[in-house]
Amino acid sequence: MRDPFVDRKVTSRRGGPTKAPLSQEAIVTAALELLSREGPEGMSLRKVAQSLETGAASLYAYVESLEELQALVCDRGLADVKVAGSSKGDWRKRLVRLLTSYLLVLIRTPGLAQLAMKTIAVGPNALRILEAILGLLEAGGVERGTAAWASDLLTLHVTAIAAAQSDRQQRADPLGPAALVIDSVSPARYPLIFAAREDPFSGGPRRLAWVLDVLVAGILNTPRPPTTGKTLSKKRMA
Amino acid sequence: MRDPFVDRKVTSRRGGPTKAPLSQEAIVTAALELLSREGPEGMSLRKVAQSLETGAASLYAYVESLEELQALVCDRGLADVKVAGSSKGDWRKRLVRLLTSYLLVLIRTPGLAQLAMKTIAVGPNALRILEAILGLLEAGGVERGTAAWASDLLTLHVTAIAAAQSDRQQRADPLGPAALVIDSVSPARYPLIFAAREDPFSGGPRRLAWVLDVLVAGILNTPRPPTTGKTLSKKRMA
Repeated sequence: MRDPFVDRKVTSRRGGPTKAPLSQEAIVTAALELLSREGPEGMSLRKVAQSLETGAASLYAYVESLEELQALVCDRGLADVKVAGSSKGDWRKRLVRLLTSYLLVLIRTPGLAQLAMKTIAVGPNALRILEAILGLLEAGGVERGTAAWASDLLTLHVTAIAAAQSDRQQRADPLGPAALVIDSVSPARYPLIFAAREDPFSGGPRRLAWVLDVLVAGILNTPRPPTTGKTLSKKRMA
Repeated sequence: MRDPFVDRKVTSRRGGPTKAPLSQEAIVTAALELLSREGPEGMSLRKVAQSLETGAASLYAYVESLEELQALVCDRGLADVKVAGSSKGDWRKRLVRLLTSYLLVLIRTPGLAQLAMKTIAVGPNALRILEAILGLLEAGGVERGTAAWASDLLTLHVTAIAAAQSDRQQRADPLGPAALVIDSVSPARYPLIFAAREDPFSGGPRRLAWVLDVLVAGILNTPRPPTTGKTLSKKRMA
């Protein structure tokens, strides 16, 4: 298997001067546009080919499969995530800033969060983000093995916030029956939900800050258990 | 707007003895089967109608929209989540057991996790699960407002684990280019990823236990900030 992020040399045999030459770059750009416009389901190889005025078969010279295209598009979409920031400020604030930047980029491009949920991100942008998160956790004194799991936990959670939010934003009525049901929940049957009925949907930016604080505090308080080959082979979760 | 979880009385005008009479129950059953077989994209009103040998228009007497059907199916899918367990054991263990049951139910039904990501779960099963989580957090001394946010954080995270896992399981090659790229990552450019390269994908059931420990520890250590109407109206995240 080859690394899709390493450029593939393709010699074009087309001579037409009007169409831009096909390239992996052009394909990824067209696919990202389709994704933004139509969401993950709209980003088929057929539709990407159509928007480039070519046939789906021509794309296979540059991308091996839809999955590979999704990985490339996902990584391209992450190009705007700011990992550097100022090196001022403590590692915790910088980590929160990085994760917030990641969240905003995912929310800004419709469909990107859903794609990030399905794609194990391994392109240059994903690696840049992962390396930065590992560095900040190390600065925070988090042991290396714990940091590896923690980086996954953090990015999964932020991706999920973005995916859930963008799914819900696509609706005419974002809370739909939820607000209705929660508001009218029986206090006898669900006393705790009734008592909390104004809370689940409230929060604003303070809620995001709280969520990230929870995750970081939890990570700092929970060293990773030793894993042995024996334990692993017994029953794998992932 | 009406509550989709309250039965709608429909008088059928069909007389055919061979077909089972259409009902919301039958529609949800057929839709859940389609979801398990074909994933979220396969669960269209048209396909559900087809599998019930009727037209999509007939379904509208029982469900208002695809979104409503998704909410009903999602809740039905959660019927097997065990919330009671034995009342023995401390709240923390019982919470972990509940969340693990929720995860296993989501993983067992292909497509359910993706649906749960998009659907704000408000049916009787979701309410039962939410009430139980709030009760366990209260038993753990978590303040009510914090518990409301915490229950959302916990279920979102577990749903995301299931969604990411089931998306990746659908692939012929689950890690795809990920394992390849991470294994061959440049130690000069990404020293921390290189050092952690065997960690991100390892873990097994111990990793799930660690993740849940992180979330619970974080929640216990992070009281919710006071939210005021003023702060909320400034800039809303959700």
